Amino acid sequence: MRLRNLKDKEEIMNNCDFLILDPSKYIGAWQKLFKNNNPIYIEIGMGMGKFIYTQALNNPDINYIGIERYDNVIARAIKKLDKRLDNLYLVRTDARFIDEIFDKEVDKLYLNFSDPWPKKRQINKRLTSPVFLEKYDKIFRNKCDIEFKTDNKNLYIYSIESLSNYGYGLNNVSFDLHNTSEDIVTTEYEDKFVEKGNPIYYLQAYK
Amino acid sequence: MRLRNLKDKEEIMNNCDFLILDPSKYIGAWQKLFKNNNPIYIEIGMGMGKFIYTQALNNPDINYIGIERYDNVIARAIKKLDKRLDNLYLVRTDARFIDEIFDKEVDKLYLNFSDPWPKKRQINKRLTSPVFLEKYDKIFRNKCDIEFKTDNKNLYIYSIESLSNYGYGLNNVSFDLHNTSEDIVTTEYEDKFVEKGNPIYYLQAYK
Repeated sequence: MRLRNLKDKEEIMNNCDFLILDPSKYIGAWQKLFKNNNPIYIEIGMGMGKFIYTQALNNPDINYIGIERYDNVIARAIKKLDKRLDNLYLVRTDARFIDEIFDKEVDKLYLNFSDPWPKKRQINKRLTSPVFLEKYDKIFRNKCDIEFKTDNKNLYIYSIESLSNYGYGLNNVSFDLHNTSEDIVTTEYEDKFVEKGNPIYYLQAYK
Repeated sequence: MRLRNLKDKEEIMNNCDFLILDPSKYIGAWQKLFKNNNPIYIEIGMGMGKFIYTQALNNPDINYIGIERYDNVIARAIKKLDKRLDNLYLVRTDARFIDEIFDKEVDKLYLNFSDPWPKKRQINKRLTSPVFLEKYDKIFRNKCDIEFKTDNKNLYIYSIESLSNYGYGLNNVSFDLHNTSEDIVTTEYEDKFVEKGNPIYYLQAYK
């Protein structure tokens, strides 16, 4: 997502009390931060935050953490959020540090419209590559539970193969989510894409 | 598969002591027929029988049943088989009668290169449509366990969606089986297709 530079991003971020800039400090203690024992669902690459915010608003008994690596994006997300929600934190970090942030305390992982990294030499950067699946093994509390959607067919097919070969079972696989399901919580990016009539690819993976 | 008419097909079939023409007679009694309690694996649409015969030869502790609807095909299969195997029977019937033949006694179902039935009005004829998945629920002993391969991408994508929406988990999904696996037991049709360099689509489904 390319965005103009937000001049006051530092200020927005520093003044936000639900943004966490040093997340490794909370490893093993996320439920303490939320002050309850509710399940923790995270989204890696939350972008402008519409998806994770809507989820948090709709499901007060679940704790949500939106992860985003770009200051510019996260500052805009903060600016856009209607109100502070007790069950939502944002974290600025890179996905590759995910296993230094969570230790068997995540119940579900959302991967929405992740970077497709199309070149062969970039495979290990894809968030569904075995490199990342190994990291996810360390963050899930019990069952590994991933929901994945993308508009990129190649990334989708790669992910189906990678997840199923890593031992994940796949459920509710759809090559055209918006024509097969209702009540879909969308991302900003997804809305634009669906408007154009393009298909969204979706799956659930668990092990 | 189009084949010239085999003139002596009646004779071949009538003289074959491992071909079953009235399979509903054996419902609930297949293990008795095999004279052991080994698991039963079936293939619907066995064609010329190379796949099921090789499986039976390689795995003497599993009982195999190859199902085929065309006399002309099944007679050729009988002619081609090298020798009688104790753990292999052939059945001439249409797949839509499958739940009148087996009653909770099948352990694995192979669907290899099934007819793609490409038109929308033919969906219910596809062997991975809910119409058939309901029938399969009645034939499996415990877990439902299907291995599926095809050269038809549309049937493959349809099957991924249909199986996963019916509650099957998917494993070892491959959009190019012969480039990702070794020691593959192939069908006659598959050999020709792979020779041309075309991909074979594969998956395992269980619930």
